[in-house]
Amino acid sequence: MSSSDPKDRSYYPHFRAVPTRWMDNDVYGHVNNVVYYSYFDTAVNGHLMEYGVLDYAAGDIFGIVVETKCQFLKELAFPEVIEAGLRIAKLGNSSVTYEIGLFRKDQPDAAAVGHFIHVYVDRENRRPVRIPDPVRAVMASLVVSGVS
Amino acid sequence: MSSSDPKDRSYYPHFRAVPTRWMDNDVYGHVNNVVYYSYFDTAVNGHLMEYGVLDYAAGDIFGIVVETKCQFLKELAFPEVIEAGLRIAKLGNSSVTYEIGLFRKDQPDAAAVGHFIHVYVDRENRRPVRIPDPVRAVMASLVVSGVS
Amino acid sequence: MSSSDPKDRSYYPHFRAVPTRWMDNDVYGHVNNVVYYSYFDTAVNGHLMEYGVLDYAAGDIFGIVVETKCQFLKELAFPEVIEAGLRIAKLGNSSVTYEIGLFRKDQPDAAAVGHFIHVYVDRENRRPVRIPDPVRAVMASLVVSGVS
Amino acid sequence: MSSSDPKDRSYYPHFRAVPTRWMDNDVYGHVNNVVYYSYFDTAVNGHLMEYGVLDYAAGDIFGIVVETKCQFLKELAFPEVIEAGLRIAKLGNSSVTYEIGLFRKDQPDAAAVGHFIHVYVDRENRRPVRIPDPVRAVMASLVVSGVS
Repeated sequence: MSSSDPKDRSYYPHFRAVPTRWMDNDVYGHVNNVVYYSYFDTAVNGHLMEYGVLDYAAGDIFGIVVETKCQFLKELAFPEVIEAGLRIAKLGNSSVTYEIGLFRKDQPDAAAVGHFIHVYVDRENRRPVRIPDPVRAVMASLVVSGVS
Repeated sequence: MSSSDPKDRSYYPHFRAVPTRWMDNDVYGHVNNVVYYSYFDTAVNGHLMEYGVLDYAAGDIFGIVVETKCQFLKELAFPEVIEAGLRIAKLGNSSVTYEIGLFRKDQPDAAAVGHFIHVYVDRENRRPVRIPDPVRAVMASLVVSGVS
Repeated sequence: MSSSDPKDRSYYPHFRAVPTRWMDNDVYGHVNNVVYYSYFDTAVNGHLMEYGVLDYAAGDIFGIVVETKCQFLKELAFPEVIEAGLRIAKLGNSSVTYEIGLFRKDQPDAAAVGHFIHVYVDRENRRPVRIPDPVRAVMASLVVSGVS
Repeated sequence: MSSSDPKDRSYYPHFRAVPTRWMDNDVYGHVNNVVYYSYFDTAVNGHLMEYGVLDYAAGDIFGIVVETKCQFLKELAFPEVIEAGLRIAKLGNSSVTYEIGLFRKDQPDAAAVGHFIHVYVDRENRRPVRIPDPVRAVMASLVVSGVS
């Protein structure tokens, strides 16, 4: 059963590994706040590409980011491999809201929690379009339904 | 008189220039969402360093980032020079919430708005401490008081 | 008269300002080695864009980087503004070799020297093409001719 | 038997996986040249940390980068996982020269080859020091001796 707390691992139906890099660490010896969003970005787009529903070079439509947020709860540091939990909180007509939790290996509580909102647009005119069905099918596996 | 809308330039009492870089642009030809937070980071810390109240190498206390958020309203792209508006929304005992607006040159409406929350901690044990008075004095110039 | 030593400011016919960012600094409190190449990248492409001979979105041809090198002589650190000296050492049929020196403000000796080689290719098939005359005209101002 | 060609996989006694990130890709849809050096940096320091001979927070001595170089032979792109081959070409008193080859999965020829030179210094005064024996012991496994 899924947790209702984004800080718990069981809140997320899917996880992706995101290794840190040497230069992620800043002057304070931990991963710089900006870089967490790169983990978000990589987890979401990596998922879509793995399931074949994001072709950034040739696709006619794609998601542009309209809002992101992150709460930093614990420090991360290279050379850790981060486990990024993914869940979709809201799947609308043209927009999708991902919730993301970043976890240190073997730790039950998230080091960071946040969200990431994509709006799908037409490549040419950058106007919102309906998220296509094949993309929705992939997204559906990240939606937690019922009482959570 | 200051605006009450974070999308307006007049909402912000102070601005800093943040030039873009070639690699900020992503596959869609605009600045990647992650990089906006680097503009936030650079504007806030650059301001504190310019006014002599941040010494990351030798200081006993410093701000760690506990939460950031950004709404992406318009595209930015290299080689633009971004103008980052800074305002402090809340100056607490150990925490400070900056509001930041990113503007394209000569455009009245923000391309992005967001916030950035620092909690001041002791370098040794990373426990929250009161923001020192000299730091508060610098921060005070970013606080907009009265009816806004 | 231009110097024959790449560590001297007078070696370079043109300079561009490249401000550092907070996250450029790494765990040792100075700019990470990787980031120097971002200064190279930004200086070269920024120059080409300023003079109207690089349109990465619509251009049929563009330069791809085939080789870069950097010697790190002195530390740099945020919040410095770096002055990047540019000179073209070799302007061939399809390739161009830039020499770049990074200088701290008011310091005569370079903090870093290196090179950056672009080969111009056709966007479609990525095959080498002759650098077009309008681009050469801009590049010519970075070539130091005669006894140097 | 090891190859004598840095473009061959068998030239390298050790490999490390370095996953790409979404934002590594630039406007041309491939990994930006700057980012290759981040793979170098991460492979070298990751190796040293895995073998327990780099403690960037508490160590009295550490390697600073004095020179790097890279030849870009083939494009890389997210979401690839890069395999970074490591070899030490020269192990001196205070300096060490790593040769690095970046390979795409299942491809025999390198996508990029380069080098990375560390000089070990004292943390306090940043003067060169002899690379300590425990560090040398780890480095030794990356040295290819005899006729290669």
